Amino acid sequence: MRDPYNAFCAHTDARLAGAKSGPLEGLTFAAKDLFDIAGHVTGGGNPDWLAKHPPAQRTAPVVQKLVDAGATMVGKTHTDELSRGIFGENAHYGTPVNPKAPGRLPGGSSSGSAAATAGSLVDFALGTDTGGSVRVPASFCGLYGIRPTHGRLPLDGVIGQAPSFDTVGWFAREPGLFGKIGEVLLGTDLARATRPKRLVIAEDAFALAEPATQVALKPAVEHVTRLIGKSETRKVSSENLSLWLKHQTALQGREAWATFGEWIDRNNPRFGFEVADNFLRGMQCDDDAYNAAQKFRAARRAEIGAWLDAETVVALPTTPFPAPLAGQTRSAMRALRATVINLTCIAGTLGAPQISLPLATVDGLPVGLSLLGPADSDAMLLALAAPATIGKF
Amino acid sequence: MRDPYNAFCAHTDARLAGAKSGPLEGLTFAAKDLFDIAGHVTGGGNPDWLAKHPPAQRTAPVVQKLVDAGATMVGKTHTDELSRGIFGENAHYGTPVNPKAPGRLPGGSSSGSAAATAGSLVDFALGTDTGGSVRVPASFCGLYGIRPTHGRLPLDGVIGQAPSFDTVGWFAREPGLFGKIGEVLLGTDLARATRPKRLVIAEDAFALAEPATQVALKPAVEHVTRLIGKSETRKVSSENLSLWLKHQTALQGREAWATFGEWIDRNNPRFGFEVADNFLRGMQCDDDAYNAAQKFRAARRAEIGAWLDAETVVALPTTPFPAPLAGQTRSAMRALRATVINLTCIAGTLGAPQISLPLATVDGLPVGLSLLGPADSDAMLLALAAPATIGKF
Repeated sequence: MRDPYNAFCAHTDARLAGAKSGPLEGLTFAAKDLFDIAGHVTGGGNPDWLAKHPPAQRTAPVVQKLVDAGATMVGKTHTDELSRGIFGENAHYGTPVNPKAPGRLPGGSSSGSAAATAGSLVDFALGTDTGGSVRVPASFCGLYGIRPTHGRLPLDGVIGQAPSFDTVGWFAREPGLFGKIGEVLLGTDLARATRPKRLVIAEDAFALAEPATQVALKPAVEHVTRLIGKSETRKVSSENLSLWLKHQTALQGREAWATFGEWIDRNNPRFGFEVADNFLRGMQCDDDAYNAAQKFRAARRAEIGAWLDAETVVALPTTPFPAPLAGQTRSAMRALRATVINLTCIAGTLGAPQISLPLATVDGLPVGLSLLGPADSDAMLLALAAPATIGKF
Repeated sequence: MRDPYNAFCAHTDARLAGAKSGPLEGLTFAAKDLFDIAGHVTGGGNPDWLAKHPPAQRTAPVVQKLVDAGATMVGKTHTDELSRGIFGENAHYGTPVNPKAPGRLPGGSSSGSAAATAGSLVDFALGTDTGGSVRVPASFCGLYGIRPTHGRLPLDGVIGQAPSFDTVGWFAREPGLFGKIGEVLLGTDLARATRPKRLVIAEDAFALAEPATQVALKPAVEHVTRLIGKSETRKVSSENLSLWLKHQTALQGREAWATFGEWIDRNNPRFGFEVADNFLRGMQCDDDAYNAAQKFRAARRAEIGAWLDAETVVALPTTPFPAPLAGQTRSAMRALRATVINLTCIAGTLGAPQISLPLATVDGLPVGLSLLGPADSDAMLLALAAPATIGKF
């Protein structure tokens, strides 16, 4: 397969022909190399993981559902190692190319899926989103991307990372297909989805974005405001968002160590230094920090639950800036990552669905506007993104 | 070259023919892949280091000195990544085989040099010893090995790790050659070396060894006692040796980060997880811990300096046990490493020379007896190891 964007894994030729008919008939898609395909080893973005695991016995149900709906799975795509990363850099397999922002990172961890979709190598692609791994590459690569409600789609046959955050999501270039995939996977009819009545413009979230990104997103926010009819500006949190980041990092890091620590201990695998650092910080997260983070999360859910009702949508920047330049130092990327996760951790902490829409650019570089709703508002968000509504922006 | 022990690096065919005559005429040796050989990249045990560095312009003076003395350098040997490790495990290139203890680790970080020497692929080999990297593999592989006085041999053209601890050392199978290399490198005549008058049996160091190792080393200690004529048993330190370990770890870790941190930050290289962990702990060492460790080291040097005079030698176990089984978990190895470094950190903290002598076995597995002297007593120690003295044991 032609792969000018280093999107696909070379270790497998996994391919599943789509059913002869169905809503996704004739379309092609790729799956992040965290999804099991029967008969193939799921590589997880790490050569030692690949070498130490047997081929999967079953295909992940979400993949199978897409195939049954007519789409052909044409390959597996690169991921940050064991999904630990937000920029798409992989020290073993190289960083996928961002087709929409030359010389810049694609975002991750669903980096290959985003690159394959943005580069039109497939019609759409599956990713996972634990801390932002669909939303961030969607923003950087100019794609529609969704992190569904936590727990909404099955993670069977998927290498998870932090169970209380892990979700399956997807990318598409076109809003129509973006929604259609949702209808297939979520089993909903978008035509019957709730229509939101109120848009909340997240003041504290926008404040985290770089000025040029704030300016670039403004017309899109105004467009969504007109569509919904009513908007207000408010902070999503009485607490500083930096605390959300701190506690999300503790929870996710600790859960990731619970998921992978035993395997790491047994195999002493090779990791890019930054990935090892992330795992080690998770390993070092003590009970006090973990318990405090759980309490904080519960408090935020209660606080936001008091106003984020079933007819409300929150607008926020998906990322505080467009795709960063490739080739920066680890410490520079680490600082940038903190500001990115400061935004993506909102949905993660709430377990809420969020879609990123490719409605803006800064100096020609894509940057996404996000819409977030309460748990189980996935259909409402996807319907909002449909060609007849936001899609016409 | 035949390499049944995975001792040699495949990335280079570096070879330097020895001078036609000289004290080491006709002998072969290997150099750990931290030593520069002109025209070849020094790989340092890490593929990203190898890929990102140009070939060395000059050959390290210690290597050249051996070549000038008639020895032929036949290859470069595996090391723990950037010399960070004590057991010889390398996640990229595999762990060299211990020719004297099947199924067990060779020790490191001068693992390939020890394996090549113990397996008779060369007559002798160069290593480096920062925290035990010559002494430990010497003990595990049944070799003579030396950590010279800190600063005694030039580190030019050698990838250093922690400057206040780094030394160049060597391995040999035979005590005669072991001493002869010392004469070449140190420029001394062992026949004129000081003869020690007192042996101190380090009670606190022996207490750290496993009972079987204590028992196994006893006849060798008695032999050395008879040779020297007088011995006494005493603690080397008024402070618990676990504190030596703690402070050495802080100093070495912080220095190692000072040495490699900028390169790591720029390149985000791949490391085995344990190596990354060691670097990260060094990175996290704060000023208070660093300053306390420096004070502790100065106090220990003053304390031991008060009784370790130029005619005194200290006997201690090189390692608390013979070579551990290969294939253990990272956490198990981490615990074992602490007990090993608890012994090796004594010479490191003092900057003192130490030789390991292959004078004992436990269930057929080699374990070394060490002799440590004050700074610049290298010749005295090497003379003690000579065939006419300890060599006859």
